[in-house]
Amino acid sequence: MTGNSIVSYRARLARNIRGHAFPGRMDARARLALTEDVAKTLTQAAGGGAFTYLPLDKSSVTAAALRERRFISPEFAAEDAPHGVVLSADKTVSVMLCEEDHLRIQAFGDDLAACLRTAQDIETLIDETHPLAFDEALGYLTACPTNLGTGLRASALMHLPALSETPPMRRLIQQAGASGLAVRGFYGEGTQAAWGYYQISNAVTLGLDEQEIITTLSEVTGQIADFEQKARQSLYKSDPVGLTDRVWRAVGILQNARRITTKEAMDCLAAIRLGVSLDLLPGYDTQLADRLSQEVWPGLLSEAKGPFANQAERDEVRAAMLRSVTEGKEIESNDQ
Amino acid sequence: MTGNSIVSYRARLARNIRGHAFPGRMDARARLALTEDVAKTLTQAAGGGAFTYLPLDKSSVTAAALRERRFISPEFAAEDAPHGVVLSADKTVSVMLCEEDHLRIQAFGDDLAACLRTAQDIETLIDETHPLAFDEALGYLTACPTNLGTGLRASALMHLPALSETPPMRRLIQQAGASGLAVRGFYGEGTQAAWGYYQISNAVTLGLDEQEIITTLSEVTGQIADFEQKARQSLYKSDPVGLTDRVWRAVGILQNARRITTKEAMDCLAAIRLGVSLDLLPGYDTQLADRLSQEVWPGLLSEAKGPFANQAERDEVRAAMLRSVTEGKEIESNDQ
Repeated sequence: MTGNSIVSYRARLARNIRGHAFPGRMDARARLALTEDVAKTLTQAAGGGAFTYLPLDKSSVTAAALRERRFISPEFAAEDAPHGVVLSADKTVSVMLCEEDHLRIQAFGDDLAACLRTAQDIETLIDETHPLAFDEALGYLTACPTNLGTGLRASALMHLPALSETPPMRRLIQQAGASGLAVRGFYGEGTQAAWGYYQISNAVTLGLDEQEIITTLSEVTGQIADFEQKARQSLYKSDPVGLTDRVWRAVGILQNARRITTKEAMDCLAAIRLGVSLDLLPGYDTQLADRLSQEVWPGLLSEAKGPFANQAERDEVRAAMLRSVTEGKEIESNDQ
Repeated sequence: MTGNSIVSYRARLARNIRGHAFPGRMDARARLALTEDVAKTLTQAAGGGAFTYLPLDKSSVTAAALRERRFISPEFAAEDAPHGVVLSADKTVSVMLCEEDHLRIQAFGDDLAACLRTAQDIETLIDETHPLAFDEALGYLTACPTNLGTGLRASALMHLPALSETPPMRRLIQQAGASGLAVRGFYGEGTQAAWGYYQISNAVTLGLDEQEIITTLSEVTGQIADFEQKARQSLYKSDPVGLTDRVWRAVGILQNARRITTKEAMDCLAAIRLGVSLDLLPGYDTQLADRLSQEVWPGLLSEAKGPFANQAERDEVRAAMLRSVTEGKEIESNDQ
């Protein structure tokens, strides 16, 4: 009973190539050479076509859109020195080249163990031509000691709108910390996080093997998902009309606003997700809400419909996009 | 160019019947006798059928509904001693019997001079069987000196959503005061007034004749209506999308809320009125908004759909009523 509270998992491997300084100590020419070299290995692998290379410029719209899709980190998106990213054709894998480490291999999906296997396959592919830096005692060598050992960061993007409104959430975050997990609000624009989004990841990479990390995170996130489902049921039962009201008002805003910020759109879409999981919104599904929860972000919106003269124009285009997608949906479902 | 900012006019005559103490000094038996006596005169006038008599009890739902329709005053609705109201069949006239004065004759409509004539016709009708208290020097005698003279209170219920958000509104209220007019927020539930509703009335009843009072109020309210229309245009021009957004979000709330307070409903309906006047809402009209602006009130809602177990239930029934009336309307007009 996990409902739709686990949005997706990610396995990320931090790796460096033997015989090269860490990216922070490389000059621009060396960074560029290494970046292009590894990119070539991937884009030409298995006859080519499985991967695409995107050299990045921090001022490009692409960088913001990639960050919003979680393909690259915020720091990477803001990087001045040469860097780039390799994406798999099916958009489930990204490899950041010359982030804090030479390689940050990320695989996304709804099965964490499968994500890890995918990331490891790519690691193996690179290792064949660019042997990786590994130490028997320390494991994979990384620029920052917090990534030493497995170099594995496993994480789940979770949507916990009901738990986020209850005191147990605080306890849950504390308990997660005690289990070596880190919990933080996610999908924030500036300092404001959208309603109920959290990223849960392992805080420790050293002293555990990959399977232990994967198993722990899968188990804990599964338990949290169960808690969330129970919290949703009790939130609903404590005031069915109040929750239905909140969900349908969100629909009303999405269908009618002429100007909407990312934060408000995300909060409305969070309400839609919650409504879908409680069978309050026959016309909607989680996939639609998740797709829109990406498309509303500034970079992705600019990529699709920009450029925009200013924020007001962007907020208008966002509202128009949301209206066009949600329009008429209440006809089939307004009999609640 | 008055748009829809003048909701309605009211002419109210305060009169007392010669040879009787003012209501505040009458015992219950005398009040009841007088009330029923005058009521009989009206209900039997012209063969009968033009008027209905409603004896009132402060705890009745009827009293609240009549107050919300402005047929009776809040003080009258809360009165303990015997009292009642006579209503015309077309609901444009109410006569409060044993309010502060024996008679408070009120006529409503969109032409203030016609309202006064209607009220005077009823005054004449009563005077034939119950001669009124009149003094050559003081005019009509009333329980409170502020009603002496003509005993005429002329008022306009105005909707000034644009002016209410601009500094000139404060100046306008001050200027109205200097012209012997009183301006106050209207349609408040508790201390909160709904968006932009004001009642404008003459503060002076003595020393002016009826025509002067009527003419002044008509002129001033006409000027205020013109100011309001200009303020609406400039509010729109300063941010067309922002105003359109505000209007359509109100539609979204009315169409989707599962629980809504009187105040929020009134604010949404005020936005609808504003939107209609600026041609932003093809599917809506002022008449619909005005009808709903009455039907959302607690007493009228209880009369139509009650009784309710508690306020939450009332807020739910209000939301359901608003949804059923506004549902599907955006289909014909969401091409803005």
